[in-house]
Amino acid sequence: MEITVMHQVMEWNEDVSAEVRAELRKNRVCLINVMGSPGTGKTTLLTSLIAKLRREFSIGVIEGDITGQIDAEKIAALQIPSVQLNTDGACHIEAMSIRKILPQFDLEKLDVLFVENIGNLVCPAEFDIGENFRITILSVPEGDDKVKKYPLMFTDTDCLVVNKCDMLPYFDFHLKTVQDDYRGVNPEGPLFLVSNRTGWGIPELAEHLRMRIRDELA
Amino acid sequence: MEITVMHQVMEWNEDVSAEVRAELRKNRVCLINVMGSPGTGKTTLLTSLIAKLRREFSIGVIEGDITGQIDAEKIAALQIPSVQLNTDGACHIEAMSIRKILPQFDLEKLDVLFVENIGNLVCPAEFDIGENFRITILSVPEGDDKVKKYPLMFTDTDCLVVNKCDMLPYFDFHLKTVQDDYRGVNPEGPLFLVSNRTGWGIPELAEHLRMRIRDELA
Repeated sequence: MEITVMHQVMEWNEDVSAEVRAELRKNRVCLINVMGSPGTGKTTLLTSLIAKLRREFSIGVIEGDITGQIDAEKIAALQIPSVQLNTDGACHIEAMSIRKILPQFDLEKLDVLFVENIGNLVCPAEFDIGENFRITILSVPEGDDKVKKYPLMFTDTDCLVVNKCDMLPYFDFHLKTVQDDYRGVNPEGPLFLVSNRTGWGIPELAEHLRMRIRDELA
Repeated sequence: MEITVMHQVMEWNEDVSAEVRAELRKNRVCLINVMGSPGTGKTTLLTSLIAKLRREFSIGVIEGDITGQIDAEKIAALQIPSVQLNTDGACHIEAMSIRKILPQFDLEKLDVLFVENIGNLVCPAEFDIGENFRITILSVPEGDDKVKKYPLMFTDTDCLVVNKCDMLPYFDFHLKTVQDDYRGVNPEGPLFLVSNRTGWGIPELAEHLRMRIRDELA
């Protein structure tokens, strides 16, 4: 599948996210902003979720990366429309870039647009890109102190996924610490424990997203 | 040990890094800027390196975090002077903050000042904080595509450390990919493979730093 590579527009974010949201609403497209550290498993997890959700929804993906198109190639291999957004050094995606990219998709045919943000536990949380909801991914090897150290990413999310749980025996990672810290800053947010490698927890996460997307599209 | 917590100054970086460098040079202090993703093992690796280097050098640490003082507490437990720099949301450390913090240390008695930057593989690489040299840490669970995807952090470093190598059997991580990509953007940069947990490779890394620090202080 051919990959379109586009570049980040660095203009002021204000109002543009509302425009993006209106355009998506008009076309009944649910935009999901996927965030997390470098190497937390965003792309591979997306791949698994797409495999489950594509039975019901028509899906597109915007892959945000500073440079290159490694991730968009992985998505395109699934025969899913994908656009690679290169921020050329910038540490997050802005709504202006999403607005610029939307015409690359046939929005009338699309139900779900995943945006994989830049691998960064800080900056992306500050920017509303017009999403319906946000998913934050944390992986076991990153350590159980991340909610305390990077609170905004966990406060301003609609769903926390702890990935690479098959690695729990090998790391000094206490799930209860993450759970307690997360509850402290985000009392209502759902928390899913998964291992993308073994598939553990993926059906439950996919089912949650399926219901959430249906709700957003209703 | 009591911990001083200071807050990031957000002013223009230009010229300030040169001032910091001159002040440190005058006092014969070597500043080392330690960077990497959240959870790559910066603080624990620093702890191991300090244990080896403190025999020869008087060491201080600035711990950069968005909020909290988890890391500074770990360093202070070693009876090493440490200051917690809270950036209050900002994704990197700037030279202005280092200038503001320097009076907290007795520079005449100090040989080495480690700065642990914010956990972030993007933004810190863009800011000269007055360091003598930079160390970039990458860990095996983050994946072997990170040099391609976050090139500046690997181009503008003086030493790449691949940590958590005891986890190589459990992850699909090809050292040769990282090595080749690193050589492509940084032909002369040293590369160390370590496992902070098992101690593997730590003596060699500490010895390299010892020689490099001696060279900087000469």
